[in-house]
Amino acid sequence: MATETRETAGLIGSDKVEGTNVYGADDKKIGSVEHLMIEKRSGKVSYAVLSFGGFLGIGDDHYPLPWATLNYDTNLGGYRTDITEAQLKGAPKYGAKENWDWEDRNRGKAVYDYYGTPWMPY
Amino acid sequence: MATETRETAGLIGSDKVEGTNVYGADDKKIGSVEHLMIEKRSGKVSYAVLSFGGFLGIGDDHYPLPWATLNYDTNLGGYRTDITEAQLKGAPKYGAKENWDWEDRNRGKAVYDYYGTPWMPY
Repeated sequence: MATETRETAGLIGSDKVEGTNVYGADDKKIGSVEHLMIEKRSGKVSYAVLSFGGFLGIGDDHYPLPWATLNYDTNLGGYRTDITEAQLKGAPKYGAKENWDWEDRNRGKAVYDYYGTPWMPY
Repeated sequence: MATETRETAGLIGSDKVEGTNVYGADDKKIGSVEHLMIEKRSGKVSYAVLSFGGFLGIGDDHYPLPWATLNYDTNLGGYRTDITEAQLKGAPKYGAKENWDWEDRNRGKAVYDYYGTPWMPY
């Protein structure tokens, strides 16, 4: 499938989002999008899971970020976020031993609340 | 990342959806999900792009399907859809020479209208 079919002015392919770099406010790369978590019923992206792979000394943990906190920057060729290192240090995260049996609704809301992003339950 | 982190009761990872088989009403495999097209602004899945890879003699064309037409069936281990072969033959599709400069809004609406799925513009 040709590259141009994975993005239009208003739409982007899930496989194009995955692996895209994420940059902080100072244009420093802080990680990349591992995948998106999608609400089965509504088809809405609940959050993006970022992999930091050793950036900031965070290690291999995975951080959920509200979709709205990622803004694509054509100059950087990746997503820019205003989220700071300090915010990330205390943020909800999913490590290797994380218990994924949380109730979904509470988990999603916790992520949005942390970043001050309006939460729209499904 | 462990498999269980890509799916919960209410959420599923975009990378888990990609490549998942799609079955017709008669449990016959008709294709697989190539990727999801996501509205950049709202973070909502606009449609799933199905690849039929020669099934039904359709060849390599890619068919956009509303997210709501795909229902995960745990027994089949894939998505079941009520969409019929006859519907697909006349459906909107994206071939190799397709003009992807359509206005997004119109394209999305055309897909939903074709399958009779309520359209929620972004």
